[in-house]
Amino acid sequence: MKNQITIGLLGFGVVGSGVAKILQNHQEDLRHKLGVPVTIKKVLVKHIDKQRGTEFASDVFTNNLNDVINDPSIDLIVEVIGGTSEAKDAIERSLRAGKGVVTANKDVMAEYGMELLKLADENKCDLFYEASVGGGIPLIRTLEDGLASDRIRALTGIVNGTTNFILTKMKHENMSYEDALAEATELGFAEADPSADVDGIDAARKMVILASLSFSMEVRLEDVLVRGLKEIQDGDLELAAWFGYTVKLAGSAKKDVDGIEVAVEPVFFLNSHPLASVNNEYNAVYIYGDTVGETMFYGPGAGSLPTATSVTGDIIAACRNLLLGVNGKRLHAPQFERKVKSDSNRFSRYFHRIFVKDEVGVLSKLTAIYSEHGASLASVVQHPRKDGEGAELIFITHQMSRQQHLNIVNELNETSEVVSVLSHYRVEGEE
Amino acid sequence: MKNQITIGLLGFGVVGSGVAKILQNHQEDLRHKLGVPVTIKKVLVKHIDKQRGTEFASDVFTNNLNDVINDPSIDLIVEVIGGTSEAKDAIERSLRAGKGVVTANKDVMAEYGMELLKLADENKCDLFYEASVGGGIPLIRTLEDGLASDRIRALTGIVNGTTNFILTKMKHENMSYEDALAEATELGFAEADPSADVDGIDAARKMVILASLSFSMEVRLEDVLVRGLKEIQDGDLELAAWFGYTVKLAGSAKKDVDGIEVAVEPVFFLNSHPLASVNNEYNAVYIYGDTVGETMFYGPGAGSLPTATSVTGDIIAACRNLLLGVNGKRLHAPQFERKVKSDSNRFSRYFHRIFVKDEVGVLSKLTAIYSEHGASLASVVQHPRKDGEGAELIFITHQMSRQQHLNIVNELNETSEVVSVLSHYRVEGEE
Repeated sequence: MKNQITIGLLGFGVVGSGVAKILQNHQEDLRHKLGVPVTIKKVLVKHIDKQRGTEFASDVFTNNLNDVINDPSIDLIVEVIGGTSEAKDAIERSLRAGKGVVTANKDVMAEYGMELLKLADENKCDLFYEASVGGGIPLIRTLEDGLASDRIRALTGIVNGTTNFILTKMKHENMSYEDALAEATELGFAEADPSADVDGIDAARKMVILASLSFSMEVRLEDVLVRGLKEIQDGDLELAAWFGYTVKLAGSAKKDVDGIEVAVEPVFFLNSHPLASVNNEYNAVYIYGDTVGETMFYGPGAGSLPTATSVTGDIIAACRNLLLGVNGKRLHAPQFERKVKSDSNRFSRYFHRIFVKDEVGVLSKLTAIYSEHGASLASVVQHPRKDGEGAELIFITHQMSRQQHLNIVNELNETSEVVSVLSHYRVEGEE
Repeated sequence: MKNQITIGLLGFGVVGSGVAKILQNHQEDLRHKLGVPVTIKKVLVKHIDKQRGTEFASDVFTNNLNDVINDPSIDLIVEVIGGTSEAKDAIERSLRAGKGVVTANKDVMAEYGMELLKLADENKCDLFYEASVGGGIPLIRTLEDGLASDRIRALTGIVNGTTNFILTKMKHENMSYEDALAEATELGFAEADPSADVDGIDAARKMVILASLSFSMEVRLEDVLVRGLKEIQDGDLELAAWFGYTVKLAGSAKKDVDGIEVAVEPVFFLNSHPLASVNNEYNAVYIYGDTVGETMFYGPGAGSLPTATSVTGDIIAACRNLLLGVNGKRLHAPQFERKVKSDSNRFSRYFHRIFVKDEVGVLSKLTAIYSEHGASLASVVQHPRKDGEGAELIFITHQMSRQQHLNIVNELNETSEVVSVLSHYRVEGEE
């Protein structure tokens, strides 16, 4: 039996330094849990001369991946570089070198997860990725182990801390989008280039990971309907509040006999819906299973230490397997064939906000369009525009297919009385 | 490598029949996950002739534990008998016979958990007990694996579905305690003898299990301060609502340098506190860790299928270990010495409701008592009693020790102007 576990850490940014800190501060606890010490032997960084104020000896740092991967004493690689190509390459080479990998990289796992898990399996190595979704919330483990016996039917959740922080500030402190984004950046919740977050791509990648695992099916990024914060128009948040809703950038995934549907988009949540009150950088995911019913998992979705807690949890799991000699024994091949629903099979309620000319009969004409498409309306509000130019019509529909919704929006945009459809959202919560 | 896993099921009540149903309905999924079939070979019941409407052949049922334990082809025992002595005996004998055990039994695990986990370890067997706490919510696994690298500082939660159902009905439907209990019994959430639930003992056992695991310390039932629903007096729920609070029977556990404190009692939660809106039979537990910060886990705390989902999750984990030949490899010995805080080291805000004679100077005299004991008041309300006999004084204090609280209540009860202290609660939520 091994008398210690040696780690190679790739990357020393916010998450990497957090991992090093936890491993150092909790060394005694880890030794109690595992029976052997866990030490970081090499840390891959870009600039080895940078001052980092750590307790590591200077020869721990290297800028050459080979120094880490070719060191036979290193058992486990922790990849927290981020990005795609360099990180994917490093994970691949680590697995080929027979080393287990723990990664926090949702970009790589969303795009190459199936391929890398297969490679891990072929090389009898563990590949763990808890920190790729939900920061400090142990979601992957819950889906893999806790709910292992159940059939997951649906997931709904807030899986991006940056956009949730921005929307919270906009709603509760009346901040502009720009100011809220600036504060998120300052607090370290948003990247220098925030586009992956605010455009919904980051959340979409996380939904790919969660949906693949939940439904035991290959889910691709192209299968996800993605709409980001730019879909939200001035006045939408206030309108939502007036109707008793809160706008959240939410991920959703469902599976039924027709296949799967996965989306990331700004959604109207009824204020009594628990996701409506998940604020700031927090994430929360509802999981609906055949036998368990409804469960919910909530926690910090961003930040150095919460994410590092998930990484370190994976490190402990990988260490246990290494010590027992059973690493790489969990096949992740999907059980079901990939099958994605068409827009005709995806049902929801919708909110439509329409800028119309102030003409006689416009309401009657527009409601007729809904009827012709077989859609029925739950709420209708007309109010004059603040600038005095024309009016706005708001419709909240009952359940209809996404195809009906798209057809209606198209026809509205071609109707002479309509200036434009300003915005549209899915609506969640009791009718 | 084994080519199948064979299970002996002890008990065929609500949980046992749920487990059988899940194993049967999800047979194909399990085979995909594990690579081998999982079958129930023997089911221990009291009356073998009872009609059960199952698909089991009649020779599967037995009323003799030896038939199960002495069957060399049975790998794993699933104990869902409930109760203490018979179940504990069955678990012990199973472990001594070298068979892994999955149990849903919080009574046994709270009282004999340490002893049984040690026995499992000595016999190189797994002993899993996810379903003993939180019904369908994977809490044990989260504490053992997901947050393995963290140091848990505190837990607060609703861990008893029956009492939460009763309190929800009393608050939201103005039901009497008796009617709410009757409905809980009818829906199968309350036992025929509900005393363990309503007196807080059931929740206390679950807190013993959670606190032992979270703090890596032996926690005993006698360490838990337990107050049940009978502490709630007529009018308390309305008073709580008037002040903006909701009363929940909550478990709490904290650890700091002075030791641990564990309690189950009716608590005033500020309505904005997320636990205030956990309703019906649902459970929810907040976990505060050094590095992860605040996480929350929510789900059905009672019911056949949710609990059976947790049991079946454990069965899968035990099967994986059996197939890998690594069962019984997780030592659970506590890392820290048992150390329980005194009442002088447990701090909280308190709500006191006092029946006083309608005399001049009573408010001044009573507030002086608080000052003398070094306690400061956040809210004071005086109102006449409905029956016209005297008045009621309500005090909500700032933080003080439980010792101060007890001393004050004692002195109030000995004060001539006080008829009696009607009720008192801990108060949770921002000051």
